[in-house]
Amino acid sequence: MIPQLALVPGEPSGIGPELCVRLAQQPRNDCRLLAFADPDTLRAAAAALALPLQLLPEDSPARAPGDLPLRAVPNAAPNRFGTPDPRNARAVIDALLGAGQACLDGSLDGVITGPVHKAVINEGGIAYSGTTELLANQAGVEVVMMLANDIVRVALATTHLPLREVADAITAAGLSKVIRTTHAALRRDFGLPQPRIAVLGLNPHAGEDGHLGREELDVMIPLLQQLRSEGLDLIGPLPADTAFLPAKLAGFDTVLAMYHDQGLPVLKYSGFEQATNITLGLPYPRVAVDHGTALDLAGKGIANPSSLFAAAVLCARLAAQRKIPQ
Amino acid sequence: MIPQLALVPGEPSGIGPELCVRLAQQPRNDCRLLAFADPDTLRAAAAALALPLQLLPEDSPARAPGDLPLRAVPNAAPNRFGTPDPRNARAVIDALLGAGQACLDGSLDGVITGPVHKAVINEGGIAYSGTTELLANQAGVEVVMMLANDIVRVALATTHLPLREVADAITAAGLSKVIRTTHAALRRDFGLPQPRIAVLGLNPHAGEDGHLGREELDVMIPLLQQLRSEGLDLIGPLPADTAFLPAKLAGFDTVLAMYHDQGLPVLKYSGFEQATNITLGLPYPRVAVDHGTALDLAGKGIANPSSLFAAAVLCARLAAQRKIPQ
Repeated sequence: MIPQLALVPGEPSGIGPELCVRLAQQPRNDCRLLAFADPDTLRAAAAALALPLQLLPEDSPARAPGDLPLRAVPNAAPNRFGTPDPRNARAVIDALLGAGQACLDGSLDGVITGPVHKAVINEGGIAYSGTTELLANQAGVEVVMMLANDIVRVALATTHLPLREVADAITAAGLSKVIRTTHAALRRDFGLPQPRIAVLGLNPHAGEDGHLGREELDVMIPLLQQLRSEGLDLIGPLPADTAFLPAKLAGFDTVLAMYHDQGLPVLKYSGFEQATNITLGLPYPRVAVDHGTALDLAGKGIANPSSLFAAAVLCARLAAQRKIPQ
Repeated sequence: MIPQLALVPGEPSGIGPELCVRLAQQPRNDCRLLAFADPDTLRAAAAALALPLQLLPEDSPARAPGDLPLRAVPNAAPNRFGTPDPRNARAVIDALLGAGQACLDGSLDGVITGPVHKAVINEGGIAYSGTTELLANQAGVEVVMMLANDIVRVALATTHLPLREVADAITAAGLSKVIRTTHAALRRDFGLPQPRIAVLGLNPHAGEDGHLGREELDVMIPLLQQLRSEGLDLIGPLPADTAFLPAKLAGFDTVLAMYHDQGLPVLKYSGFEQATNITLGLPYPRVAVDHGTALDLAGKGIANPSSLFAAAVLCARLAAQRKIPQ
């Protein structure tokens, strides 16, 4: 039985709906898709792109380009590409939560998400800091954000923190959870029996024996040693500037960066915008696009769908891996 | 008149001497080299590599592979590859200072340096934090460190600071000096009449309108606005993760990162270890290798000389640019 995955376009006035319409044109044998979305928005996106779209009942198989099974989550207000409307914030969140709940219930096997517009959701009266956090809260778990392309996978120990708060956020307890979650997800979702995780130092040159910061000596090295004694395969703490040299990368299954701008510039540079954003630690696989709503491009048919295409392929692969008995 | 450049191997027990011997094998018409080094060490490196080496008086032209004019700076103790000796720290520093002084005197046009072993210099009783700082102090100027390869140039607003000290080190006064120094050097040394400098934000997403840190709003944006009103072409503050996308990079003459690990991972990834380290703001061009002493490789003839080769080419180009009347 192939995986059945939720497809959630995200902000209706952004490029998410048209990317989903494009995705629905592709024949696929790795998964079945079920969209959680406003039907009129998807139809408008298809019309703007002059592409076929047949919205099908939930249980109907997709047979032709443009066939897309749908669970309707109607918008409260008419959608206009390029102009977010806070009145539709509820529908955006309900689509995401509906998809997550279907996975928690076991009726679906994973979630693929498009870009959400954080400010307009909050304007709509819903406290929202990100889809990753929303789904983690719904599932009652702590998660790790990983970004990946064909070259490298980068997991993040901290994500959207002001730089001055990063050093204090790297604690043994917190980092231990992040490493364990990453290790477990690489085993379960990626099918790597003994994943090799390269852990970057917090400080330049990984602290250079304490000359450039003590967190490696005081927090990181003892923690890595303890986790190694439990059988985890951890390299580091490594200097961030040389850890991504291609010859070194070949020896790692993932790089764990301590903060956002330590790990993501090289990820995005290397992948030419085709990265995906994977949430590790949920009870199901969730893969998102690695770009924003691109309001200025929405409805014009010029947005690049490669990140959503890659997200669908990866989510199907992770979901299939989960179906293999452990 | 082609530029005459000092060539300083750095730590004698490391790979610097053999890289210099390799460099001396190349015919070149972009500069004349003058080594500041211990003659026995260079001869031992040549012997280890089975390469020709003729050490010439200072004013003799190099005519054949292995010809190398030399200003002798003798070691105090016999050199052994792979085993640094603190008794030779003085000679390492004297060679660097001698090269710098020759440029300050106007008798030479630039300095190319190999890797220095920081700990052994300090063990030798000489306070030393880096060659960049040594030459800046000698010249009585403030400098900016830039790393460059064929893909990208990255200048650093702060260099070897613990991460927790970075945010407080980004002040309007300090950043203003860094930007002005970078702008002036791109004009004078690189020959770019109106250099375009992309300035990265300190915080992830460049602070996201204050949600992820306020330094962009409080310090950076007002400063950039002021410098723009003086005619500098500055882009940013930009989110670091997307600033290096190839399509964007094409529009920048340099990227100014706020700290070490924000800018250097992508630089080193993109250049496959062929980067060079350029000191901006000195009264003369100085280009260094972008690697360490590699004690484990020294004297074996297997060290990769591409960074020193690139440093020589670039230093010659920068020195020639300086000779063009402004």
